[in-house]
Amino acid sequence: MEPVLINGEWRAAIASGGFNAVNPTTAEALSETFPISTMGDIDAALDAGHEAVRALRNSPAGAVADFLQAFADNIETSSDQLVEVAHTETALPAEPRLASIELPRTVDQLRKAAAAVNESTWKTATIDTSARIRSMFGPLGAPVAVFGPNNFPFAFNSVSGGDFAAAIAAGNPVIAKANPSHPMTTKLLAEAAFDAIRETGLPRAMVQLIYRISHEDGTTFAGHSKLGAIGFTGGRGGGLLLKAAADAAGVPIYLEMSSVNPVFVLRGALESRGIEIAREFFQSCTLGVGQFCTSPGIVVVPAGKVGNAFVEACTGFFAEGDPGVLLGPSDHIGQAVATIKGAGAKVLAGGAPIKDGGFAFANTLLATSGESFLTDPVGLQTEAFGPVSLIVRADGIEEMVLIARALDGNLTGTIYSDTQGADEDDYALLEPELRQKVGRLIADKMPTGVAVSPAMNHGGPYPSTGHPGFTAVGIPASIHRFAALHSYDNVPDHRLPLQLRDKNPNGVMFRLIDGRWSQRDVE
Amino acid sequence: MEPVLINGEWRAAIASGGFNAVNPTTAEALSETFPISTMGDIDAALDAGHEAVRALRNSPAGAVADFLQAFADNIETSSDQLVEVAHTETALPAEPRLASIELPRTVDQLRKAAAAVNESTWKTATIDTSARIRSMFGPLGAPVAVFGPNNFPFAFNSVSGGDFAAAIAAGNPVIAKANPSHPMTTKLLAEAAFDAIRETGLPRAMVQLIYRISHEDGTTFAGHSKLGAIGFTGGRGGGLLLKAAADAAGVPIYLEMSSVNPVFVLRGALESRGIEIAREFFQSCTLGVGQFCTSPGIVVVPAGKVGNAFVEACTGFFAEGDPGVLLGPSDHIGQAVATIKGAGAKVLAGGAPIKDGGFAFANTLLATSGESFLTDPVGLQTEAFGPVSLIVRADGIEEMVLIARALDGNLTGTIYSDTQGADEDDYALLEPELRQKVGRLIADKMPTGVAVSPAMNHGGPYPSTGHPGFTAVGIPASIHRFAALHSYDNVPDHRLPLQLRDKNPNGVMFRLIDGRWSQRDVE
Repeated sequence: MEPVLINGEWRAAIASGGFNAVNPTTAEALSETFPISTMGDIDAALDAGHEAVRALRNSPAGAVADFLQAFADNIETSSDQLVEVAHTETALPAEPRLASIELPRTVDQLRKAAAAVNESTWKTATIDTSARIRSMFGPLGAPVAVFGPNNFPFAFNSVSGGDFAAAIAAGNPVIAKANPSHPMTTKLLAEAAFDAIRETGLPRAMVQLIYRISHEDGTTFAGHSKLGAIGFTGGRGGGLLLKAAADAAGVPIYLEMSSVNPVFVLRGALESRGIEIAREFFQSCTLGVGQFCTSPGIVVVPAGKVGNAFVEACTGFFAEGDPGVLLGPSDHIGQAVATIKGAGAKVLAGGAPIKDGGFAFANTLLATSGESFLTDPVGLQTEAFGPVSLIVRADGIEEMVLIARALDGNLTGTIYSDTQGADEDDYALLEPELRQKVGRLIADKMPTGVAVSPAMNHGGPYPSTGHPGFTAVGIPASIHRFAALHSYDNVPDHRLPLQLRDKNPNGVMFRLIDGRWSQRDVE
Repeated sequence: MEPVLINGEWRAAIASGGFNAVNPTTAEALSETFPISTMGDIDAALDAGHEAVRALRNSPAGAVADFLQAFADNIETSSDQLVEVAHTETALPAEPRLASIELPRTVDQLRKAAAAVNESTWKTATIDTSARIRSMFGPLGAPVAVFGPNNFPFAFNSVSGGDFAAAIAAGNPVIAKANPSHPMTTKLLAEAAFDAIRETGLPRAMVQLIYRISHEDGTTFAGHSKLGAIGFTGGRGGGLLLKAAADAAGVPIYLEMSSVNPVFVLRGALESRGIEIAREFFQSCTLGVGQFCTSPGIVVVPAGKVGNAFVEACTGFFAEGDPGVLLGPSDHIGQAVATIKGAGAKVLAGGAPIKDGGFAFANTLLATSGESFLTDPVGLQTEAFGPVSLIVRADGIEEMVLIARALDGNLTGTIYSDTQGADEDDYALLEPELRQKVGRLIADKMPTGVAVSPAMNHGGPYPSTGHPGFTAVGIPASIHRFAALHSYDNVPDHRLPLQLRDKNPNGVMFRLIDGRWSQRDVE
């Protein structure tokens, strides 16, 4: 049985059993067995996390940023092994996906987080000289639990991904709960992190790792008063269970749960470049075998001739494209497709699992009318986490507006329009409705690219996430999720944190001094 | 029966009954009867709120800021009547409290909110020119419900206070639920707001008012999918009921619930100015008859000679000070005092209600040992919302640190220390523990003053509020509670909100352009 990392030691888990990951290409179990941890491990990790909170006060200045840098370096050093193991556990292509896209993205996120820690503008240091009050964002004073998803073994991994980087950058210890689909990848990353801890003098319990817990222990963990916050990326069912437990205990929880990422294609765009958009749509929908949070699950087009030509082109692409290997069994995709069909959609292509030994589901395209969508918007917004999408043929812009109004909260919403201005009036009607339903409004490109940008919002209204004000991707914005607002009233300069003292400690941090952002000292 | 304000009309409520406010000085019911609204009113208000969201898109530019200004002006015009009615309903002194402190504070908050709307730096406009992604905070796309407390009839009123100003400044309609202890004050304020709406061309349903609802309808309201967010200030019991309903529906809720505002007095401070601090403590604890969220409910002092002298002085102040008139019946104070006594504290002064016709409770001081506090920290942290405080005699700084560690989340935490440096070592041990338990860390003054400062945090870790990252007081920070993060990816300049276009629309808004805060245009 593989060890867990708790309180600075790789040790045997206090386990209720074990599990093995599965090779998705063959559907066969891999050889290493990982423990299912119990509350014994969780309680120990929480206590050690609190000790780390205290020990961090005596760590060398700059240790957090140094750790993030060293961890990024260690990941690059181990990249060949990481890519090989992650490919075995997830079937995601080693090239370009894992080696040339996701691993560099992960390393880049960690380095951006390190830079943000050093630069410190993210702390929003706010100084009111006349009232003698100063504030900034600081750590939570308790460890953060990170639950990672199955679809990004590096970039959203609980022990190396965006939530991890943000929680650490805010100054909090992390208790990582691996995604059980890629435990060995996660173990290797935790080893790289733990090496970096020892190299940089951070408290040894700043990073801890368990692999799997029962649902019951998961809710006990999520609702534990010793927890500072939770970052979760995964399915809506599991997310809502953790949310209920965390909410009841007052533990802030940030969830990235579900999204069908509606795409609206206006008439002018279809007329001028419909086939091109159909190809983009197919490529986006099947990228990563459709297992992206921002995969386009609903495409709304005007009914009639141009709409029909678009649907026909899409059907061809979906029917002819090769299916990829999924991360795991396709049962949930089949169930979602059945729900969408039951709500009134027809299958245009695919619609069934592919039985060839590994995990696969046919590229699947469904279609329905705008009227049908408005009759059962809940059923027809069912997320199928795979290469599946639904085309809705709307009866003009008025029905498109009603469809936008009937949408749940989503991570993204996209509008394709004519580049020569033919769709401006329709855009002006549709945009305000779509705007309020999504975190990121996209023009004229598919939603699957999620840049690590300070202006990114990988978030959105409920139920795509649990809070419309926060993003899970993008530095420094994502760090704020794991920070507490600390105000200091009448506190003498020498007792303030460095970032709030009269002298700007690094000369580059921006601070909001008497209503103006500046890099200057307080005079 | 008094009318409600729904969908731009003062109309009869769809009511299940009525209620009358009570004059706290006499405990007699006032003459006007107000309705207890049912879901009929709430559903109508929610629908009208959504219409207002749409109509706001066509309102004159600057209408929101103009409204906040006009509303402030209208309140000043009606100030005599407002003060008279509020005094009758709350027994708070007309002078200086209502007329010279709270009303000017309320007007000032509205004007600061107007200035923030015009200036727009609060939107955190973030521009990534290379990735072609821009983001800013925008409205929620749904109305905000505001539940006001009993203790600030103007400054925290659901229809004029801090939550109201912040929700409107973010661009959201407000559905105000009056505090039933001062319904006529709230009606007058809503009239002033509604006049301002008509003067400035805002959608007529931007401000709506109901007075009271059943607990059952309250939870249905809080958990309604048409609600954008909730601001609540009040007791922990009611707050947690609304929180459970809102959380289950994914409605962001900001609660300002309970706090005992621990004050630690270090040895050097006691030695040099113990009696002075005792006087400050008594004044702070009895300010507003102890009915402030930031009233000092626990004071921790070193045991022994200087501690005893402090306790003796405090006991004298509490025993000799005149009791004030409470906002309502004192039963809850009596219950809290009984709980604190049951947990091991002894009464040094007061301890019982005063029966003279109005609502009053004797100024009450309790005491216990540090050891006793650590034995039952939950019971001894019971909040008594009135002129009641508990002194804890701690056995040295080590026990003070353990007491800080045993604290629940609080709005404020205060440390008094020697001004000549005698307490620096003790301060360094205590501060990190207290810091993580409170929103605002205060030095050498009592916690009851809450300045409307950009650096204020009137918030803190659970259970003082529901989220450690947000403040209910202070502009612009408090506005962020009622905003959604809106990212725009690849959207052409002419379709962006003005604040995100290349040209800075007002030349004074700060924007985070490629990592640097500036007031410039994008080149």
